[in-house]
Amino acid sequence: MEILEKAQEYEKKGRKITHLEIGEPTQKVSSIIKKTAKNSIEKGYDRYSNSLGVLELRQMVAKKYKENLGVKISPDQVVVTTGSSAALILALISLIKRGDQVVIVEPYYPCYPQLIKIFGGKVRVFKTHERDGYQIDTIKLKKFLSKKDKVLILNSPSNPTGVSQNKEVLSFLSFLGINIISDEIYQGLNYDLDAETILQHNDKAIVVNGFSKFYSMTGWRLGYLVVPKGMIRGIQKLQQNMYICAPTISQHAAIGALQIDNNEIRNMLKSYKKRRDLTIKSLSNMGIDIGYSPDSSFYVFANMSKYTDNSLDLSLDILNKVSLGVAPGLDFGPSFKRYIRFSYSSSYRNIQIGLDKMREYIKGYTE
Amino acid sequence: MEILEKAQEYEKKGRKITHLEIGEPTQKVSSIIKKTAKNSIEKGYDRYSNSLGVLELRQMVAKKYKENLGVKISPDQVVVTTGSSAALILALISLIKRGDQVVIVEPYYPCYPQLIKIFGGKVRVFKTHERDGYQIDTIKLKKFLSKKDKVLILNSPSNPTGVSQNKEVLSFLSFLGINIISDEIYQGLNYDLDAETILQHNDKAIVVNGFSKFYSMTGWRLGYLVVPKGMIRGIQKLQQNMYICAPTISQHAAIGALQIDNNEIRNMLKSYKKRRDLTIKSLSNMGIDIGYSPDSSFYVFANMSKYTDNSLDLSLDILNKVSLGVAPGLDFGPSFKRYIRFSYSSSYRNIQIGLDKMREYIKGYTE
Repeated sequence: MEILEKAQEYEKKGRKITHLEIGEPTQKVSSIIKKTAKNSIEKGYDRYSNSLGVLELRQMVAKKYKENLGVKISPDQVVVTTGSSAALILALISLIKRGDQVVIVEPYYPCYPQLIKIFGGKVRVFKTHERDGYQIDTIKLKKFLSKKDKVLILNSPSNPTGVSQNKEVLSFLSFLGINIISDEIYQGLNYDLDAETILQHNDKAIVVNGFSKFYSMTGWRLGYLVVPKGMIRGIQKLQQNMYICAPTISQHAAIGALQIDNNEIRNMLKSYKKRRDLTIKSLSNMGIDIGYSPDSSFYVFANMSKYTDNSLDLSLDILNKVSLGVAPGLDFGPSFKRYIRFSYSSSYRNIQIGLDKMREYIKGYTE
Repeated sequence: MEILEKAQEYEKKGRKITHLEIGEPTQKVSSIIKKTAKNSIEKGYDRYSNSLGVLELRQMVAKKYKENLGVKISPDQVVVTTGSSAALILALISLIKRGDQVVIVEPYYPCYPQLIKIFGGKVRVFKTHERDGYQIDTIKLKKFLSKKDKVLILNSPSNPTGVSQNKEVLSFLSFLGINIISDEIYQGLNYDLDAETILQHNDKAIVVNGFSKFYSMTGWRLGYLVVPKGMIRGIQKLQQNMYICAPTISQHAAIGALQIDNNEIRNMLKSYKKRRDLTIKSLSNMGIDIGYSPDSSFYVFANMSKYTDNSLDLSLDILNKVSLGVAPGLDFGPSFKRYIRFSYSSSYRNIQIGLDKMREYIKGYTE
């Protein structure tokens, strides 16, 4: 956040900054999304929806889980939310009471500890390592957990590593007897292996998902939960009090998103894969080796220990010297204060420019 | 909620229900709202916005406060939120810690006690009375407040009474030394006197407002806060963690809403006033006298003590016998379990039909 604000400050003064620090797809939404959204405005589908969401959308989400992931869920289990932020909040509030411990996996999405604290929980951090490819060490996790841990938040594919947990890990988690909130907002953005969901291994898990990342619908604020049937009523009441319902036009736009044809999706995934490969190769060429396989989402998490003990200072220095924004690892957990996250969510050309700037910076650094 | 669910159940079976229980305008949004929304979709203004909101919208809100209400606020003080629900939640979380007491004024909007509890506060209820025209008795309120009361939530114009607090009350509140969250979501829907805001009397108050009621933009989920400058940074951080930003297309639609011409607004207010007068007169004709002056919002709160000790049973009976939905007073506080709320937010014709059904019911009841 500090980097982004500093970058915006420079931009106000007319400096041209290349943003590889932002986790937001820059590509335009598909034309069918625009079309269904405009149609819903024209037709007046803009009143409060049912608090659980527009039924047609919930049915289509359930169908997608069946077709793409082989998981059978009922439309009743789908709760449409105001972005995946609201989905995570509804799940958290449903599961924890004041003082309950919530386990997050480091490196983690920076909002997790903040939200847990806002809602009265205690944060417990379980660490993963680059040397393990950021896979969760299940034996260690089992030992780590105590009875006071009420919820484990999983993020696979992950921000900031771009790693998906493998089947063995996902399957193992269901034997731990802990509530699992599986944040799968990057699901489907997989470039080497098939997309997964924890629901293939654990029908008691709560899934957080949404349209922001895969369909590039960030400003539309539309997400959803998949919850076990017993939790629906409680979550509905929370939704009514906290949100009333998700934005109705965005819900209709999402109905459009789920009709995008497979060719368009395949091309998008190909394009992301190309950008991922460019990022890893360019970094490697300048001496920054990525010691694991970022197979999903749109992030690469680089170990910068060779260059710094404090990647926040390094990130500020990169911004100052070569006008490139990158995200310091400290944001994702104190163990990663020597790391930097590169996002390849912007255009191929923009990423090229950014990595050229990085090369220039590293050259100056090592000379 | 029980009434609405029962009504929907009947509707599924093909029965025609008249809804006077719902607090949602049924009129279509203005054409300029549709136009600006579609334009923002076309132009791709659909990425995350600044977490505080689109600057142009915040500037226009500040301008509106100056022109319509004579209050000078800076665009910096306007935080655009996902509906007024989010505005209220951000204000509450900013002000209270676990165990703090929050005072609400009975009869109250049902979400208030729920939200206070969700965020760890304790609810204290200060009662107002029909015989006082639902004005707050400021002398009694002063005695009622203790040091443990951290926040007072005001709702003027009010749901469910349709009453605006008078200038003397609004002015008095600033001398109490308690944080005030003034929920002014119905502001501007005033039919007898000028619209007011607490900011005319108290520049430390936090105002909750939005586009759902006045501009009939319920499903667009767009509200805002006006906050003292010292609170902006804290609220921004909460917003980033909990919501990221309000829906971007809705923000652009709201820029359109603020350009609606005065004639259109005047006609809308005339139409509401006509519907209000119809409601009060028809109720009076059937022997239900409204003993106070509902001068704003779109509700009339009827004392049904003559007919019942339990207006929830009465409301269910009305629904069963004449297919009319009304809101039982219990929802708005236990002191009002003999009251019923009628909403005149639907069309004149629909209100006529509903009140005809009510007359038929009362006739059967008294025979």
